[in-house]
Amino acid sequence: MTTTAWSEFDTDTAVTASGDGHYSTTVSDRWAIREGVANGGYLLALCVRALGDQMAMPDPLVVSAHFVRPGTPGPAEIATEVVKQGRRTATGCARLSQQGGAVLLAQATYADLEGVSAPAAGNGPVAPHDSVAPPESVAFTNTAPALAGPETCTDPLTLSEQPGATVAARIEYRLDRVPGFWYGTPSGEPISEFWMRFADGRDADTTALAMLVDAAAPVALDLGVGGSSTIELTVHVRARPAPGWLACRAFTKHLSGGHHEEDFEIWDSRGVLVAQSRQLALVR
Amino acid sequence: MTTTAWSEFDTDTAVTASGDGHYSTTVSDRWAIREGVANGGYLLALCVRALGDQMAMPDPLVVSAHFVRPGTPGPAEIATEVVKQGRRTATGCARLSQQGGAVLLAQATYADLEGVSAPAAGNGPVAPHDSVAPPESVAFTNTAPALAGPETCTDPLTLSEQPGATVAARIEYRLDRVPGFWYGTPSGEPISEFWMRFADGRDADTTALAMLVDAAAPVALDLGVGGSSTIELTVHVRARPAPGWLACRAFTKHLSGGHHEEDFEIWDSRGVLVAQSRQLALVR
Repeated sequence: MTTTAWSEFDTDTAVTASGDGHYSTTVSDRWAIREGVANGGYLLALCVRALGDQMAMPDPLVVSAHFVRPGTPGPAEIATEVVKQGRRTATGCARLSQQGGAVLLAQATYADLEGVSAPAAGNGPVAPHDSVAPPESVAFTNTAPALAGPETCTDPLTLSEQPGATVAARIEYRLDRVPGFWYGTPSGEPISEFWMRFADGRDADTTALAMLVDAAAPVALDLGVGGSSTIELTVHVRARPAPGWLACRAFTKHLSGGHHEEDFEIWDSRGVLVAQSRQLALVR
Repeated sequence: MTTTAWSEFDTDTAVTASGDGHYSTTVSDRWAIREGVANGGYLLALCVRALGDQMAMPDPLVVSAHFVRPGTPGPAEIATEVVKQGRRTATGCARLSQQGGAVLLAQATYADLEGVSAPAAGNGPVAPHDSVAPPESVAFTNTAPALAGPETCTDPLTLSEQPGATVAARIEYRLDRVPGFWYGTPSGEPISEFWMRFADGRDADTTALAMLVDAAAPVALDLGVGGSSTIELTVHVRARPAPGWLACRAFTKHLSGGHHEEDFEIWDSRGVLVAQSRQLALVR
């Protein structure tokens, strides 16, 4: 896996083993979504780093996390447990705590994704049989976002200040079509497609994908909600990403009862789907 | 919640507290997907029943599970831990083991979904603003399946014997359009919409939804795969279901590297989305 000693992500997700599967770490203030509140994906990446240290497999294949309370900059402890080390997969769990209280519960299954990459016939994105028309009411999109080049897209940080959201300085976003909420006029259409990469030039690896799926503003803002808090986040990592910009698609289909889901897809520079996630969030 | 003493589901998901958050139970042979292998959703429902017994909240709002090894008919132990009992939500984890080995790791956040039901303006399925056309490449379907009445649909058990799949006798399925794999000719189009309910007349509740999302044959069979095994399953429960038939939609968008996801939606007889799930599975 690509790790660059000087990268912000690697520096800020470093964990120190203290024995018996326990790790100490520091929640950095560089990944905050607002003053004093760390990004959930960043907290999850801390758990993935710690659990990955215990696993005989290199890649987090699927990670699911329940967020119990907000994480804040400062010291944290991560307790990991390896439940099974199998031939093809390894499964375990991790709990991140601060001041003795659980912040995040995570479960993860690891695998080796070496060689899993370009789609091939019968083994890539699903191509529905040409002669069978999907029922009209069924959505069926399995292609990468069709985006203009990043150099012609909009940097949202030129549109709006994000005071306290230090995570916005860690990641570069390039919007092909700017969602209405950036202008204060929610469109009612909670879909966004855009480019993303680390601002310091670090290429994404499978650990970083577990964070990046949660690193953009919620598209539910385009429904006029004031904000949302993640209750649960599950990330499927489908392949190791190639270097370069990542093409992303985020969408929400259902807002009801004060909850909404958000789906997030990340496609790499080869056009390969590398991560697919869904979260359930509480509307604030 | 509706529980009918004589229902197969309630009988077969009964758990007995043995102190300290531990429960004993018996994995029934009535929910097998093949000889000697219990349905994953059924195993998850056992954990939801045990954890629900510990929670101050009635409904599993979101449940995520990693499947470590197959569950088999016979005795099982479930260890639960309540991590947080909050004012709006409660979070905990459960582990189902057989003969000392972990079968299933689950995490769940509970809530009270009383009164969450019919969609209302701004609070139901998302209605994209009429004047904004979604980008062509983006799927955006948030409506209930449009199905012919169950009485005019096909019962798949009249098409094919399912030896060893005892779960098929617990649940009634009615297919509006029969997927090709039922005839041995996969269509290449892994989407299915159909009706489902318990065969014994028990109405679904929020605990049953956590099982039902995993109770149909994988639609990836229509891609010609021989079968698939669930690695991880996450279920969002969006509302308590009304009595009656449940309208379901299952689809797979991405098969790559020997893995596929399956999305599953369940809509109740009022047309309300009551559950939305996704699993990552390994192709066999």
